[in-house]
Amino acid sequence: MGRQKEYLDKLSRFFQIRNLLLRQALAECLGTLILVMFGCGAVAQRVLSGGSHGLFLTVNFAFGFAAMLGILVCGQVSGGHLNPAVTFALCLLGRERWRKFPMYFLFQTIGAFFGSAIIFGMYYDALLLRPGSFNLTSTNNTAGIFATYPARHLTLVNGFFDQIIGTTALIVCVLAIVDPFNNPIPQGLEAFTVGFVVLVIGLSMGFNSGYAVNPARDFGPRLFTSMSGWGGAVFTARDCWFLVPIFAPFLGSILGVVIYQLMVGFHTEGEARDKKQGTVQENLQLTNVASSNNSKEATKEIY
Amino acid sequence: MGRQKEYLDKLSRFFQIRNLLLRQALAECLGTLILVMFGCGAVAQRVLSGGSHGLFLTVNFAFGFAAMLGILVCGQVSGGHLNPAVTFALCLLGRERWRKFPMYFLFQTIGAFFGSAIIFGMYYDALLLRPGSFNLTSTNNTAGIFATYPARHLTLVNGFFDQIIGTTALIVCVLAIVDPFNNPIPQGLEAFTVGFVVLVIGLSMGFNSGYAVNPARDFGPRLFTSMSGWGGAVFTARDCWFLVPIFAPFLGSILGVVIYQLMVGFHTEGEARDKKQGTVQENLQLTNVASSNNSKEATKEIY
Amino acid sequence: MGRQKEYLDKLSRFFQIRNLLLRQALAECLGTLILVMFGCGAVAQRVLSGGSHGLFLTVNFAFGFAAMLGILVCGQVSGGHLNPAVTFALCLLGRERWRKFPMYFLFQTIGAFFGSAIIFGMYYDALLLRPGSFNLTSTNNTAGIFATYPARHLTLVNGFFDQIIGTTALIVCVLAIVDPFNNPIPQGLEAFTVGFVVLVIGLSMGFNSGYAVNPARDFGPRLFTSMSGWGGAVFTARDCWFLVPIFAPFLGSILGVVIYQLMVGFHTEGEARDKKQGTVQENLQLTNVASSNNSKEATKEIY
Amino acid sequence: MGRQKEYLDKLSRFFQIRNLLLRQALAECLGTLILVMFGCGAVAQRVLSGGSHGLFLTVNFAFGFAAMLGILVCGQVSGGHLNPAVTFALCLLGRERWRKFPMYFLFQTIGAFFGSAIIFGMYYDALLLRPGSFNLTSTNNTAGIFATYPARHLTLVNGFFDQIIGTTALIVCVLAIVDPFNNPIPQGLEAFTVGFVVLVIGLSMGFNSGYAVNPARDFGPRLFTSMSGWGGAVFTARDCWFLVPIFAPFLGSILGVVIYQLMVGFHTEGEARDKKQGTVQENLQLTNVASSNNSKEATKEIY
Repeated sequence: MGRQKEYLDKLSRFFQIRNLLLRQALAECLGTLILVMFGCGAVAQRVLSGGSHGLFLTVNFAFGFAAMLGILVCGQVSGGHLNPAVTFALCLLGRERWRKFPMYFLFQTIGAFFGSAIIFGMYYDALLLRPGSFNLTSTNNTAGIFATYPARHLTLVNGFFDQIIGTTALIVCVLAIVDPFNNPIPQGLEAFTVGFVVLVIGLSMGFNSGYAVNPARDFGPRLFTSMSGWGGAVFTARDCWFLVPIFAPFLGSILGVVIYQLMVGFHTEGEARDKKQGTVQENLQLTNVASSNNSKEATKEIY
Repeated sequence: MGRQKEYLDKLSRFFQIRNLLLRQALAECLGTLILVMFGCGAVAQRVLSGGSHGLFLTVNFAFGFAAMLGILVCGQVSGGHLNPAVTFALCLLGRERWRKFPMYFLFQTIGAFFGSAIIFGMYYDALLLRPGSFNLTSTNNTAGIFATYPARHLTLVNGFFDQIIGTTALIVCVLAIVDPFNNPIPQGLEAFTVGFVVLVIGLSMGFNSGYAVNPARDFGPRLFTSMSGWGGAVFTARDCWFLVPIFAPFLGSILGVVIYQLMVGFHTEGEARDKKQGTVQENLQLTNVASSNNSKEATKEIY
Repeated sequence: MGRQKEYLDKLSRFFQIRNLLLRQALAECLGTLILVMFGCGAVAQRVLSGGSHGLFLTVNFAFGFAAMLGILVCGQVSGGHLNPAVTFALCLLGRERWRKFPMYFLFQTIGAFFGSAIIFGMYYDALLLRPGSFNLTSTNNTAGIFATYPARHLTLVNGFFDQIIGTTALIVCVLAIVDPFNNPIPQGLEAFTVGFVVLVIGLSMGFNSGYAVNPARDFGPRLFTSMSGWGGAVFTARDCWFLVPIFAPFLGSILGVVIYQLMVGFHTEGEARDKKQGTVQENLQLTNVASSNNSKEATKEIY
Repeated sequence: MGRQKEYLDKLSRFFQIRNLLLRQALAECLGTLILVMFGCGAVAQRVLSGGSHGLFLTVNFAFGFAAMLGILVCGQVSGGHLNPAVTFALCLLGRERWRKFPMYFLFQTIGAFFGSAIIFGMYYDALLLRPGSFNLTSTNNTAGIFATYPARHLTLVNGFFDQIIGTTALIVCVLAIVDPFNNPIPQGLEAFTVGFVVLVIGLSMGFNSGYAVNPARDFGPRLFTSMSGWGGAVFTARDCWFLVPIFAPFLGSILGVVIYQLMVGFHTEGEARDKKQGTVQENLQLTNVASSNNSKEATKEIY
């Protein structure tokens, strides 16, 4: 046992990364990998089993709890954003430094890429056996397991609006959860709560185009599918739909920040500021009173 | 970074609303918007997808967790009622001032109005493509996505009774959750628990008329539908059903307060009062003993 | 506002019940009413909607979360048993006084009776409109909404065994949750955990006969159905099945206590006892050492 | 009451096991029994009811919450592994002693054996009545209720990969949850979180071969079925598939430890070590400063 501990300690010292930003980016990568692995895994299970082992509801549960677990795995290290739109919102509010943004975006996309690769490997037999699986024009097409594609009824404008609203809803709820002046959630339960946010977005906003609301979650797996059998069609399909879940979420992020701050955030923040100033002024007055008392006493002593 | 913080601080000071009641009403508005957006969104997803992307169960989940999130967003500021019937019950018990009631009612209704407007925009393509979507007499009618309509088997009397029972059940559970003398729920988890109350009401009381149990949640969206394609028929349908989810919940609210107070509330409150008085009396006796001791000592000193 | 508070205070003093046992029994009554109202309501919703508004899964969720809410409403006052078999187990272990048992049993049954009455009223129209609803031999029979009846494949012996196992599983889990030496569940979350126990019993032990595992939950509603249209047949059906969910749970309760105590309870309890004795002995030794030191010093002083 | 307490105390002293390892192994046995009883019970309910009383989703819920309850029952005593692969991972990291591993493995398997036996007894009538129930080549075969069998599309290689990935995902999440340097989950909620891990694995990785990811959970029930009607075919079926869920999880366990440690664990551990050393050095410096001050004062005193 002693020797094992010693050996583990040596390993730990050898592999320890001392650069904070790299460490955080790696953690984000693992977190997003977990999100996409479990989430896309549930879509695969639903599609490949023809519904016998999954419903749209199970996909919603999987994405919700996968977000929860991803945040739990990396939250302490990197904040557990798992989503460039969330990183963007926190940068906008000055709670994260802007230089984190490109690094997080990159590693979140890498994590999503490998997450979908794992699911591809896991369901390799089932994908191969399904005729038309790799053909985007076939009804048996399985590209939708990994990246999102709009439903037939959806126009591009409405789809853009759909992604903006979904992300706005996500950001408003996330900001409320992490707002230090507003939220009394017990420490450690933020991950659960964000999981429920993702779940509920899936329950109510998933029909149009599969609620990506996350550029990394959509682009990473789409890149993987383009390289593993589906080809460049994954980018050109449906009037280059792939651009929508990349750009719309950032607009949603801005909108979410504005709405939350105007309706709740500025006021709770301001109240906290007012209280603090109040305390400061009170202290000042007390000091004045005390010093005037002192001067009175000093006056007394003179006479 | 420094300049960004400065700029945000200025914005915060500019937009901060210092009137407490208005701030609370705005928070209620956002909370109810979230409740209705996610809740009605789930109904829309179920109806428009023809069941492939939703079940009645997913609607129940969505309303439950939407209530949870709505309360989390505004709870710290306004109490997170999201429902005029809840505000009414707390006013009845003297825990909120009566002048809050009309203000909350108004802003909750406004929030519900805009919540349903967002869902209308989000599923605009799907609504337009569905034939008979905007015709209340058609079986393809989608007005039920936004406001509640009774099932075919339901008479008006039973429907009234249904809404009273549903609200009573809601109020009894909510009072137990917020009762300071009864409830040991960890701080910050009240929102989760209320979410489960809404979920379970949907699981067991949703078949008759869709468990509105909330005048604002029903009237706001109904007003929106009357203005956006369905017309005045939303008010006259089923013998003016729309009046039931406005008035019955307040009766249920009164009934819930009476039942909870008679069976649990008065006794736990009384016990706390008895303990307090007991402590006071004990202190009084101790003081008496002490003073008599003093008087004895004083007597001794005399002699 | 002042006058309202005064009036409420007077009401509170007037209705306060000072007898502890009666207060606890009333709270149990309300808790069990909530359990049965939400639970049987979910069965009603599933049966009467023909499956469109409910699944067996929604019934399981409803009973699980209904148990959770019932415990939250009365737990602080009465312990939140909601089930004579739980009361029985706690009496067996000496954690509750035996004289509580008949009182709790009676009021739990009364609560279950009224809980099913509320659901009967709520779904009155739907019950009346369904042909054969009140006829126990019809396939449209709805007596199963309120009390449990065995599936066609089940013999009486296996049914008895089924009820014993279900209750044993319930009691083992409940004992683990309330064991002060074993369980680190945050205060206030016991109710949630018991809810999950009930949920999981329904998910895996509900097919044979509907997992009553609770004499009050089964007998109260059965009595109500015998009085409101179904007649005495509810007692004689299936070889007097109604006796099984009354007697088997108590056997399961004994078995659960024995299994939990032999495999976990006695050891954690013993460990706590050993530690306590260890501390006592240590204190004793410390005292001895101290006194011997004193005597040495005393000896020194002598010389 | 006094006499009952005395009697219970005597019983407690008589049955108390003082050997810690045996006590822990017994607790693991009960915990795994609960996991398998509820989990396989849900499969039985789904299979035997032909889907009317269960879905694949309910099986996932049951295994998830069963894991949660099993951990709650034995966690305080034995750590609540319920799975030899988890014990193996913790031994690899030096957090448990290696001699625990065979003992835990044995008793976990025994618990799983009896858990499936209870479900066999509970659904005995339903199993007997189903034609072809005990014949592994029949489509009505019910051996899959107890142990896992691969789906038709699955090759042995992909199946092996499937079990490795599933266990890796489990171990990464479990390590994040129990990592003292990473995880801020409130004490007592680890069991809930692990339950969600098991749930989400079932939602997204259950289609290939039923997500055993646990040698004890698969081998114990398989042994039981070989002895109770299905015969040796349960071992030879599908090219001796039974070996996969025994060996693959340990490989997954190693992989999970490596991934978690490289991407998160070593860095959080290292950070904690660095902080500690920092504190030690600071203290050292403070001591030096203090002692040099002392020596200065001492020098002063000399002159």
